[in-house]
Amino acid sequence: MTRIAILGATGYTAVELIKILLRHPGAQIVALTSRQEGNPHVAMIHPSLSGRLDLCLENMGPAEVAARAECVFSCLPHGVTASLVPHLLAAGCRVVDFSADYRLNSPEVFAQWYGEKHADPDRLGHVVYGLPELFREDIPDAPLVANPGCYPTSAILALAPLLKAGLVEPTDIIIDSKSGVSGAGRTPKLTTLYTECNESISAYNIGRHRHTPEIEQILGTAAGAPVEVIFTPHLVPMDRGILTTAYARPIGPLTEEKLLDVFREFYADEPFVRVVNHLPGTKDSVGTNFCDVTARIVRDRVLAISCLDNLVKGASGAAVQNFNLMYGHPETTAL
Amino acid sequence: MTRIAILGATGYTAVELIKILLRHPGAQIVALTSRQEGNPHVAMIHPSLSGRLDLCLENMGPAEVAARAECVFSCLPHGVTASLVPHLLAAGCRVVDFSADYRLNSPEVFAQWYGEKHADPDRLGHVVYGLPELFREDIPDAPLVANPGCYPTSAILALAPLLKAGLVEPTDIIIDSKSGVSGAGRTPKLTTLYTECNESISAYNIGRHRHTPEIEQILGTAAGAPVEVIFTPHLVPMDRGILTTAYARPIGPLTEEKLLDVFREFYADEPFVRVVNHLPGTKDSVGTNFCDVTARIVRDRVLAISCLDNLVKGASGAAVQNFNLMYGHPETTAL
Amino acid sequence: MTRIAILGATGYTAVELIKILLRHPGAQIVALTSRQEGNPHVAMIHPSLSGRLDLCLENMGPAEVAARAECVFSCLPHGVTASLVPHLLAAGCRVVDFSADYRLNSPEVFAQWYGEKHADPDRLGHVVYGLPELFREDIPDAPLVANPGCYPTSAILALAPLLKAGLVEPTDIIIDSKSGVSGAGRTPKLTTLYTECNESISAYNIGRHRHTPEIEQILGTAAGAPVEVIFTPHLVPMDRGILTTAYARPIGPLTEEKLLDVFREFYADEPFVRVVNHLPGTKDSVGTNFCDVTARIVRDRVLAISCLDNLVKGASGAAVQNFNLMYGHPETTAL
Amino acid sequence: MTRIAILGATGYTAVELIKILLRHPGAQIVALTSRQEGNPHVAMIHPSLSGRLDLCLENMGPAEVAARAECVFSCLPHGVTASLVPHLLAAGCRVVDFSADYRLNSPEVFAQWYGEKHADPDRLGHVVYGLPELFREDIPDAPLVANPGCYPTSAILALAPLLKAGLVEPTDIIIDSKSGVSGAGRTPKLTTLYTECNESISAYNIGRHRHTPEIEQILGTAAGAPVEVIFTPHLVPMDRGILTTAYARPIGPLTEEKLLDVFREFYADEPFVRVVNHLPGTKDSVGTNFCDVTARIVRDRVLAISCLDNLVKGASGAAVQNFNLMYGHPETTAL
Repeated sequence: MTRIAILGATGYTAVELIKILLRHPGAQIVALTSRQEGNPHVAMIHPSLSGRLDLCLENMGPAEVAARAECVFSCLPHGVTASLVPHLLAAGCRVVDFSADYRLNSPEVFAQWYGEKHADPDRLGHVVYGLPELFREDIPDAPLVANPGCYPTSAILALAPLLKAGLVEPTDIIIDSKSGVSGAGRTPKLTTLYTECNESISAYNIGRHRHTPEIEQILGTAAGAPVEVIFTPHLVPMDRGILTTAYARPIGPLTEEKLLDVFREFYADEPFVRVVNHLPGTKDSVGTNFCDVTARIVRDRVLAISCLDNLVKGASGAAVQNFNLMYGHPETTAL
Repeated sequence: MTRIAILGATGYTAVELIKILLRHPGAQIVALTSRQEGNPHVAMIHPSLSGRLDLCLENMGPAEVAARAECVFSCLPHGVTASLVPHLLAAGCRVVDFSADYRLNSPEVFAQWYGEKHADPDRLGHVVYGLPELFREDIPDAPLVANPGCYPTSAILALAPLLKAGLVEPTDIIIDSKSGVSGAGRTPKLTTLYTECNESISAYNIGRHRHTPEIEQILGTAAGAPVEVIFTPHLVPMDRGILTTAYARPIGPLTEEKLLDVFREFYADEPFVRVVNHLPGTKDSVGTNFCDVTARIVRDRVLAISCLDNLVKGASGAAVQNFNLMYGHPETTAL
Repeated sequence: MTRIAILGATGYTAVELIKILLRHPGAQIVALTSRQEGNPHVAMIHPSLSGRLDLCLENMGPAEVAARAECVFSCLPHGVTASLVPHLLAAGCRVVDFSADYRLNSPEVFAQWYGEKHADPDRLGHVVYGLPELFREDIPDAPLVANPGCYPTSAILALAPLLKAGLVEPTDIIIDSKSGVSGAGRTPKLTTLYTECNESISAYNIGRHRHTPEIEQILGTAAGAPVEVIFTPHLVPMDRGILTTAYARPIGPLTEEKLLDVFREFYADEPFVRVVNHLPGTKDSVGTNFCDVTARIVRDRVLAISCLDNLVKGASGAAVQNFNLMYGHPETTAL
Repeated sequence: MTRIAILGATGYTAVELIKILLRHPGAQIVALTSRQEGNPHVAMIHPSLSGRLDLCLENMGPAEVAARAECVFSCLPHGVTASLVPHLLAAGCRVVDFSADYRLNSPEVFAQWYGEKHADPDRLGHVVYGLPELFREDIPDAPLVANPGCYPTSAILALAPLLKAGLVEPTDIIIDSKSGVSGAGRTPKLTTLYTECNESISAYNIGRHRHTPEIEQILGTAAGAPVEVIFTPHLVPMDRGILTTAYARPIGPLTEEKLLDVFREFYADEPFVRVVNHLPGTKDSVGTNFCDVTARIVRDRVLAISCLDNLVKGASGAAVQNFNLMYGHPETTAL
């Protein structure tokens, strides 16, 4: 039974994580942190947890956390995370980090996209990117795992097999992604009010969404060559789910059957990637840790399509998948 | 052409009002006020108005407003409204007030429900309640019209004909109302985030919603006797619309046909109340100034049902209906 | 490991049931039936089951079903169910029936509300109503369990403790319920098209919804006296969830604290009923087998409020809860 | 006052058209047709029209229609339309056709995409495409106007100015469109049930959507060269609205400011196209005849973005815009 702390427990990834861990036979949640005043009971913050977890949210520093927990899931924002993680690691905790702080290899790229200096630059380049489908073997022994972003997971699982197999051009890739609103977090903002989002779809952060360098870095690893993408995120009026429609230019002749075969082979042993023949909807995988992928060819262009739940396979489900690998549980436990 | 100012122009009732007035041949919007810094163009605040109205939001006092406009629609919150209205009236403006400040007759009742002393108590009891279906003859000459609340309009139009005709008990009334989220306003709050409201329905403010005394006062006028209601509002995952399901106890034998006849007679000359035989959905009246009403009898209990758009017949449409009566336009102009 | 057949496997209760049973250590799904032509793979009908269950839907008679399965979950419509169940029972199967065929005690009441003669009238009055919170002790040995309707579960769990304790009048009860659209099933109809339901709420079947006699019968058992209710169902634009707002007249003086104490005592040992102090939203229990209940007093009237997921606690979760009791598993297994 | 008939009056484009025409001072609706039995009143089919239009739906042939109306709006499906239109034209009616039957110039292309022989092939190539922004001068005298498809309008308005100005490659264009569900019509189908569409986004008809040749034909006219597009439609959980995100490769150096200038110049005199600097959401134009367009440059690729209401600018609003041009009304009348 691993003692677990969750940092930043007021948001949507945290409550999703708690629900998954509550059915995990090898995990015991022992601490939840937040800067909320008055140490509110978790059921005050997340009414859906009423009667399911009897813990209060506490404002704790890394030493207190480390005194209580062996494994830390950090749902804190980027920036603040990198100022805490070194202390947690030094105190002997293992960490699964939901923020972007440890996903990029280069402090310069981080500074360019996130607009601030990295607080723990020397560690960059030495942290495993927690996408088991690409980096499974590095996860079991990792003290720190950078849990992937939701859009990157959806884009990478759709494109990595094709780039790895050399089937598509690495620098002519368009990623048109559509996400439910929970991806925007739980902090009240005008743009995520019900009455602003509902019955509307819009693109946002075109050309400057911070998941872009993460997608390019990991796809570059898969391709063995620099990858350049145009990434266009859209906000869709639904709670959860990401659909990615990616467009890539084939190298040489290709058929849909060949594409699907490449997918099937690449994901043959993967418990959470389903290669499907039909065009999936996000609803098919919402609430699960599955990612559905398929492919089409139109006018000599490859379309790779993926669907996943941004809070599960795109965040908390992936985190527990990493936890399972880190602590020797069957990879599908609780998922 | 009446020169019009709209106070508190950042919210949903204001933008709905602007859209209605833009198609009104007798209205010219000359001022929009807000405390937003930097005098933003209205299209920055309401992108749907791009290319439709070339005005900026300005932080103006009542004297400035009165210097520019003849008629003022105030979309400000209760409390602040009553501190401005006397100045506007003194300066010769006529005012349609969307807040609750002038709806109640009694400063004591106001203080009890709104938790604060009224700033202009002497005027209470002398302001017309701007529901033309009940008080049409008082509106044309009114310097100040208290525009009804959205829930009260829906409850009153469903029940007033029955109370006036003495068909139901005035002190055994249950009003179970269901509203879209726009009724909660445009200020970012956790409870009105997309991801909190979507795919969920809940009751709120049971027994203490501030529209209760307003409903009771106006229904009391209709009944000619004190009215007591149990009012239960619910938040429904949709932008607009209120459905009210009211339960009342009949006095003497009643049939559904009799009920519908009473409705049809009461609303015979009303342009915006539709007495229907079927069970209406809120979608039938959304985007219009209509209120649909019907009635049923179940086990010797009367069910009166109404549907309307909380932003139109429940707010801005009603305000323009009042404006039409005040300025001698056909009552349906622009509606 | 119990071999399970699911009859009528194309609908929403069936797919929800399959997902629950897939994580049940003591259940093995061995047959799915449907009248669909061509024996389609279950993943063709329910894409969310891709890669999770490798079975085809087959058009099977009761003898074939009984040859393969020990326990049958029937998701068939009323009427047809009662013509099959006797054969299944005679062949030794135990049956959990999702239809209304075995919920009522009286063939006359059935005929009155369902408009047809009952096909198996002698069994009525001898079938356990599968609501463990009221009839737990009768379930373990039952060959046939009538799984409760979704609205009845929500109404009964809100009101039974109060009626049993004699705190409210049994014949002055109003049940105003609001349900997500999945309750209307998966057969294409104009009224359940996305564009008809979305952004709209409406009442339907006022005074003649078939769940009315079921509610009255079970509440009557709890009250030990005839119960009469006015039941008003509403369709809400969301997938799942039922919120019931029930109004009852107290017998003698009552406080909210007393009401909540009665709830807490009644449900003290119940794993799936949560007595909460706050006003619950349906989202808090969606996707779970929980029912959240609370109560308020307004103007000497009791308001009892409940929330549940109509497909889980209102259907398939309850069915598995019954299965657990029937086959000696811990009651919360897989839930 | 022009006497108007609407063929196929049960669907969403028809009810939207009726609502627009009801506020048109130069239009009188005199006939509504449908194959529904029993000549139902229009308010039975569209409850939102209760009290607004007193007409029944009648099963009428072209001769009867022509005897009553001067102008016919046909909301019938493709195929059946082309079998009726010749008769209507011969009888002296002018026709605005919502179907695809007269949009394409080539019977062969029609047969290839629609899978059937065209019933009136000789007229193809001689019918004006009713998009005033491109073909305004041909509309006033046209006996028959082919009202554009909803996706084509959104794609063409985003791309035509760029192709006409020779700024982008005509054969390397990706059109990723996202539409609300009303585009799928009002016929009950599993795929458009509330519970299937809600909380889900999916791509459909990839590479074979019938709007593809229409887009290519009209953009080809604008470009003066053959245009090839990859068109990917998506179904979004909302009633109305299309967002098109189009990707094109620039010819020569380009800046965002240059792109927006080209848009502003092209649409300088257009009453219904708004060139905006911000990224528009579909909600900004829903319920209006506006199309919002903007552009971005990312990594040397042009992104052209448009938003419109598929039932207004994408169908019935455009039809009335055409009607206004055909009958000499100001183009914005009733819009």
